[in-house]
Amino acid sequence: MIPSSNNLKTINYTQIVDLSHVIDPNIPIWQNDPLVEFEPVAELEKDGYYLRRFSMGEHSGTHINAPSSFYEDGVGIESYPAQSLVVPAIVIDIRDKAIANFDYALTTADVFDWEQQHHPIFPNTVVLLYTGWQEKWSDKKAFLNQDEKGKFHFPGFGAETSRFLVEQRAIAGVGIDTHGVDPGQDETFSSNRLVLKKAGIVLENLTNLDRLSPTGTTLVIGILRLRGGSGTPVSVLAFVP
Amino acid sequence: MIPSSNNLKTINYTQIVDLSHVIDPNIPIWQNDPLVEFEPVAELEKDGYYLRRFSMGEHSGTHINAPSSFYEDGVGIESYPAQSLVVPAIVIDIRDKAIANFDYALTTADVFDWEQQHHPIFPNTVVLLYTGWQEKWSDKKAFLNQDEKGKFHFPGFGAETSRFLVEQRAIAGVGIDTHGVDPGQDETFSSNRLVLKKAGIVLENLTNLDRLSPTGTTLVIGILRLRGGSGTPVSVLAFVP
Repeated sequence: MIPSSNNLKTINYTQIVDLSHVIDPNIPIWQNDPLVEFEPVAELEKDGYYLRRFSMGEHSGTHINAPSSFYEDGVGIESYPAQSLVVPAIVIDIRDKAIANFDYALTTADVFDWEQQHHPIFPNTVVLLYTGWQEKWSDKKAFLNQDEKGKFHFPGFGAETSRFLVEQRAIAGVGIDTHGVDPGQDETFSSNRLVLKKAGIVLENLTNLDRLSPTGTTLVIGILRLRGGSGTPVSVLAFVP
Repeated sequence: MIPSSNNLKTINYTQIVDLSHVIDPNIPIWQNDPLVEFEPVAELEKDGYYLRRFSMGEHSGTHINAPSSFYEDGVGIESYPAQSLVVPAIVIDIRDKAIANFDYALTTADVFDWEQQHHPIFPNTVVLLYTGWQEKWSDKKAFLNQDEKGKFHFPGFGAETSRFLVEQRAIAGVGIDTHGVDPGQDETFSSNRLVLKKAGIVLENLTNLDRLSPTGTTLVIGILRLRGGSGTPVSVLAFVP
């Protein structure tokens, strides 16, 4: 996304990669969240067309969270301007660390390392964290990874790192291939709260992050404008140069 | 969307317009289709986050139809390649004719008129029909406009016109601001069947078509990849030069 003087913007790409999982009744579901349901309503022979009712949680499948999910007076997802849903993205790959430690939380040192290899993270960027969890999607137990006490073990953004990214880098938001941008061990949802306080972007359960370069991607986030929505399943299309 | 020799494509835009309606329990619903439902599941104070279950039909709100909706052996919406969901669009404005005749069906003469004013419709374009129905959205009765016998009266694409557009112009698909690309009077869904036979794009219940120029728009269609989906509510973002 290259802005120019007359407000003309440009997205250059050679490929479009869909970062959203297919949705069906077998996807991993967060504890106490509603199951995905499909129910046939109209039949081709009888009605002239086939059609189903579907039912799911606002934070199921690949989804975006809204401020109303974490703040009493937060806006719903329907109020996000179209412009805010088209954003450049960078990818930080922490697979090695996440394999060694399922509870790994991204550090500011990791961010500095990335910046040294590439460039300072520009304002209004979405920071995507590639943990390797996307490969566990078809194994619900491994994906959610709850221990015998019901505690989750999956990697995410450290709270102080998110604070740094929001305050010092003015990022547009965060995204991850696990079920939460907050590591499973963070039961206060620090990164969600930090980013959503500014009505930023929080994307969870992403996939295909292996197909993105560290820099140069533009995301186009397709939301359902559910009135008062605490979030919604989304289409996330990555335009890759 | 300007293709160049090395497969690099470019979208130039100054504005992004969301062509999707907000979804809530009060939107117009096709007869016998399921109602939109929102049900709170998690509460901020008790659970640490607020979250709802939502339930709706695959063809409700602003939506896309899939071949499986009209063909026994048709594919579901989850099989649409990401590339097929980024397409140039033109807009044909038939508001005057639709005000005079609620059953108005777009003719090939209308298409030739548009082409004379602009240019021949290029292959792989989505043809959007602006009928003015988007302004009736908040008045369910006027939007669906059923007579005392339950027959629908709203404008759409004439069957022969769609055949011409598919066969002679090789369009990518069609879209409209009414509840169906087929005029209310066409109970065989001719245009849906013609376009979906080729797994093309069918968009219904669009809005904000008044904010598009006749030419130059690129659509980015954000679907939910519902497995086996007969369609899905969609985000349609228009990138306007």
